[in-house]
Amino acid sequence: MSPSRVRKQVDGALLSFVARQRPGLLAISDDLAPVMAALDALLGEGKRLRPAFCYWGWRAAGGDLDEGIVNAAASLELLQASALIHDDVMDSSDTRRGQPSVHRRFEALHRAQDWPGDATAFGEGTAILLGDLCLAWSGEMFETCGLDDDRRRRGRAVYDLMRTEVMCGQYLDMLEGTRGGATVETALRVVEYKSAKYTIERPLHLGAALAGGGPGVAAALSGYGLPLGIAFQLRDDVLGVFGDPAETGKPAGDDLREGKRTVLVALTLERATPAQATALRRRLGDPDLDRPGVAELRAIIEETGGLAACESMIAEYAHEADRALAAAPITHEARDALAALAVAATARST
Amino acid sequence: MSPSRVRKQVDGALLSFVARQRPGLLAISDDLAPVMAALDALLGEGKRLRPAFCYWGWRAAGGDLDEGIVNAAASLELLQASALIHDDVMDSSDTRRGQPSVHRRFEALHRAQDWPGDATAFGEGTAILLGDLCLAWSGEMFETCGLDDDRRRRGRAVYDLMRTEVMCGQYLDMLEGTRGGATVETALRVVEYKSAKYTIERPLHLGAALAGGGPGVAAALSGYGLPLGIAFQLRDDVLGVFGDPAETGKPAGDDLREGKRTVLVALTLERATPAQATALRRRLGDPDLDRPGVAELRAIIEETGGLAACESMIAEYAHEADRALAAAPITHEARDALAALAVAATARST
Repeated sequence: MSPSRVRKQVDGALLSFVARQRPGLLAISDDLAPVMAALDALLGEGKRLRPAFCYWGWRAAGGDLDEGIVNAAASLELLQASALIHDDVMDSSDTRRGQPSVHRRFEALHRAQDWPGDATAFGEGTAILLGDLCLAWSGEMFETCGLDDDRRRRGRAVYDLMRTEVMCGQYLDMLEGTRGGATVETALRVVEYKSAKYTIERPLHLGAALAGGGPGVAAALSGYGLPLGIAFQLRDDVLGVFGDPAETGKPAGDDLREGKRTVLVALTLERATPAQATALRRRLGDPDLDRPGVAELRAIIEETGGLAACESMIAEYAHEADRALAAAPITHEARDALAALAVAATARST
Repeated sequence: MSPSRVRKQVDGALLSFVARQRPGLLAISDDLAPVMAALDALLGEGKRLRPAFCYWGWRAAGGDLDEGIVNAAASLELLQASALIHDDVMDSSDTRRGQPSVHRRFEALHRAQDWPGDATAFGEGTAILLGDLCLAWSGEMFETCGLDDDRRRRGRAVYDLMRTEVMCGQYLDMLEGTRGGATVETALRVVEYKSAKYTIERPLHLGAALAGGGPGVAAALSGYGLPLGIAFQLRDDVLGVFGDPAETGKPAGDDLREGKRTVLVALTLERATPAQATALRRRLGDPDLDRPGVAELRAIIEETGGLAACESMIAEYAHEADRALAAAPITHEARDALAALAVAATARST
């Protein structure tokens, strides 16, 4: 299948899973219709990166065309929806994928209905519950994907590990953010668990395990997936500061406003003069950071050489992934697809 | 097995599941030790009601002694831990099971460490992530319980339904709380999904499905479980207003401070004079409600006859459950155990 065909199939699998759930929810109460609408809106967007890596991990390990792998791969998009919804609560993000975040959406519903209770708490509570529902449904979609018990048992070990790793990575990310003082080394550890394994390495491993691939294939996929995953997250960090809102779906400089302690920030602080470091630390995480404030911090990140250092790390990790891919014992078709995914995951625009 | 022996086995299964996870987390980072400690503290307490109903549903449907059912039943306690941790964030509860709630625990850690970031946001973020981890682990523990694929497939359908129902029920509960004006009827619908199905009916069905029980057993267990589940929640509502903190693990009158729109409150408002209704509505949900305020609201709930009406509903539902249990086509041993659980679930003290 071509990458665009994989994407269409994943979209179709997600739509039909959600369509199977909808009547049950509405039978409980019509009041659940806005919850389903919020999920529809979120799932309508997204690059389906994790399902794509899962599918090509399967093909790389010799899996053939099977509806079951599409369902299993698509279940990762529900896991990702859960992570995004909860992340946005934790980061107080206003937007996601170019739309209001789920908690803001329900805060707005509360205000529009003029209900007497606390609109913010209602928005956050709904987002916590919808994120929980997506997490439960991702497991349900995986287990009911249609692949046989033996394949699922092998895949489940990866699936379980991946969920634990990403949740731990998110905790460490938040911890580094709140206690400050992240070094390049500690920021990279967060990147490894929160992004590189979760977004690329484990989806590849999941697909390969479902296909019955052995440790050799898994190791080859790690050789490609881990460095690519790091490059992917570093690219995301750069886009979070310098990206075009029309492409990122987030306001310009949103990562600066959220105070994320990224590798990019750590690289900048390593290179900053005391005055630059003080200025960066003072404004980083300021929720009221305006356009001139964003411009000021962008200038520091460029002038210190932090941006150039980050771009050079991205290039190195992407190159390492390329080399590993070239040597991997997989089919031409899988190699070509994974090479194309590597370009998409690290491109300067999304 | 005697009820206390079931409890010991469930405790043991939980301890060993968490013990298997611990090294993996600490290998990611020592910084995860406080997260594991918070989980240990929460799992150290609790009545294990849902595992008990699951186990006796299994026995009622003819299941025999098997380590697998203990693991499957114990996995419900991780699901419940997830629900409690997230509930406490949504309700801004300070305590749970006689200890600080998870979000307060990490807020306190943040302050004790004098970290520069926002302590409240750190506490809530950690609680969201630990709740997610417990939800993921409950699925993992269920799938790796040791029962064979066919049994798990039958049980999984119930497990999936139960998770969806409880999350929807929690949303409806929050919705009724925030928009006010809950009637006895709407409050009872919330009780059905949030409590009666989740705490009693579905755990019984899960056990029965795992044992291979047919629709006859499931219907008999519903006849007992649904009314008992309603009685259980109504008892919980009464304890939330009138209960002894030493027994409930929550401060006196905590449900009043959180503004819960319970059946007890709806019954009171149905019977209140305009002055009583105004006074109750005015103070319900006041986070600063002090001891005299709690006493004032308790007096209204008693004087209107709301409390007596609620106690009479509890007695009726409990009686309905008793009758259904007497007629259920199950073994004497299961019937005796379920009768004892019914008494424990609706007792005036915990």
